[in-house]
Amino acid sequence: MKTTIVFFLLSITAGCATIQPSEPTTTAEVLAKTMPSDWRQPNPGNLLVMELDAGQVVFELAPAFAPAHIENLRKLVAQRYFDGLAVIRSQDNYVVQWGDPEWESAERSRSLGKAESTLTPEFYRASKGLQMTSVESRDSYADRVGFVNGFPVASDGSRTWLTHCYGMLGVGRDVAPDSGNASGLYVVTGHAPRHLDRNVTLIGRALSGLSLLSSLPRGTGPLGFYEDPAEHVPIRSIRFASELQNPPTFNIMRTTSASFQDYVASRTHRNESWFADPVGKIELCNLRVPTRP
Amino acid sequence: MKTTIVFFLLSITAGCATIQPSEPTTTAEVLAKTMPSDWRQPNPGNLLVMELDAGQVVFELAPAFAPAHIENLRKLVAQRYFDGLAVIRSQDNYVVQWGDPEWESAERSRSLGKAESTLTPEFYRASKGLQMTSVESRDSYADRVGFVNGFPVASDGSRTWLTHCYGMLGVGRDVAPDSGNASGLYVVTGHAPRHLDRNVTLIGRALSGLSLLSSLPRGTGPLGFYEDPAEHVPIRSIRFASELQNPPTFNIMRTTSASFQDYVASRTHRNESWFADPVGKIELCNLRVPTRP
Repeated sequence: MKTTIVFFLLSITAGCATIQPSEPTTTAEVLAKTMPSDWRQPNPGNLLVMELDAGQVVFELAPAFAPAHIENLRKLVAQRYFDGLAVIRSQDNYVVQWGDPEWESAERSRSLGKAESTLTPEFYRASKGLQMTSVESRDSYADRVGFVNGFPVASDGSRTWLTHCYGMLGVGRDVAPDSGNASGLYVVTGHAPRHLDRNVTLIGRALSGLSLLSSLPRGTGPLGFYEDPAEHVPIRSIRFASELQNPPTFNIMRTTSASFQDYVASRTHRNESWFADPVGKIELCNLRVPTRP
Repeated sequence: MKTTIVFFLLSITAGCATIQPSEPTTTAEVLAKTMPSDWRQPNPGNLLVMELDAGQVVFELAPAFAPAHIENLRKLVAQRYFDGLAVIRSQDNYVVQWGDPEWESAERSRSLGKAESTLTPEFYRASKGLQMTSVESRDSYADRVGFVNGFPVASDGSRTWLTHCYGMLGVGRDVAPDSGNASGLYVVTGHAPRHLDRNVTLIGRALSGLSLLSSLPRGTGPLGFYEDPAEHVPIRSIRFASELQNPPTFNIMRTTSASFQDYVASRTHRNESWFADPVGKIELCNLRVPTRP
């Protein structure tokens, strides 16, 4: 059984030698033996903190993939653009979306101020310069999949892009590919809509509090928009953690670490006694990078 | 572009010649031109109707895959086993589960009566005798995937099994593989946990009302169990539609129809104007069989 497992382990693709896997273990065992150096603390300047009446949702942004969209988002947050706006859409098995409830009318609730109204799409980027940890998985949508700095990605070799796994944060857009400007954001709350990959600009992923959004009542309008404004869920504020007096902090497993390789192996080949069939396969979006508050 | 599309179309695997695809169209166009013969009306004797205070959730059962578990479930429903029990677990991005809140204690809320307490697992069945419509998809977990009578399935050739896509209904079990008896049921409410395939007996899929379960607050206990009994969501009743005076009815697209092939083609190659990249690929669990009340 041990020889089979090796086949499904990760290979580090940054030019260094393949790290030898440890003995197969369960996920709990892998997590128990990690070292502090296996974990990173995200930059508070890249942590987006959304305050709802029910609590806090925190996202880590990925400026390596969408610098222009994240720059625009920084301008919007600096202007307190989102404060008092709302969650306006919850479509079952798909996405939750927030922004201006009046986005469809000529009369928007507020101005974009110093932010751009259109942006060149950042649907993918050059692979060059990225340290991607590949995952051995036969993916339905891409030739290669893996992680870059904790974010799930896919690649065709020359290009790499963030993938629409559960919890990924994206920039809503209209029909025109450049119509997304980060004033309307969505998070994936259903089975990964991977057909959106390279069709929308993704900018980050949820680190905590996602269930506050994923458990919202579904909207009854087309695409899950709330039909009655009374259903809108108010956003108290959106800030960067670096602005907060008591910022949330996280430990995220380094996806370049040997422990992460062991973690992927433990999710691929299930050694827990409950499993009648140890599986031996994995899909990108079923790998959730271990994250601790 | 049209020649590329053909590559991703369905092939019917029941020995008949491959049906020629129609011109590429959008999903809306495919649905608009279906004929009554493209739709089937499920047998009310296979429709499980769960009544909650908030409304009705309806599942279609698949006796071709789990006859013994469904037979046991029929005994439980006939005894009104579920009436007054509750939804006891909601784990984000995973499952919602219901049954006896006292399932862990020696003192169960009620007896299984004439139903069996253990059953031989029905994790898969022989492929022989099934008419499977294959889908051209590079699947992470199985060599072949497709549909049998509207249910998503995977196969290794000799064996075929139901797959854990969003909305699939399964029978909870303990560590012993034969410990599932249908007195505890779960539905998938997150990214398809395909590692559960061939590890749990699946018995059906949700046809309507699933969002009543998927939007429930997440439980804060281990595995998303509700910690406070006050959080339990009461089940008014579970019945078969064949017992009801006003049974729900559905039209479900026949997965053996040419229209379904066109539908899969339209979900694979996205011709809607919104798509900057037409994708050209599909994953099994991103195909939801068209269903109309």
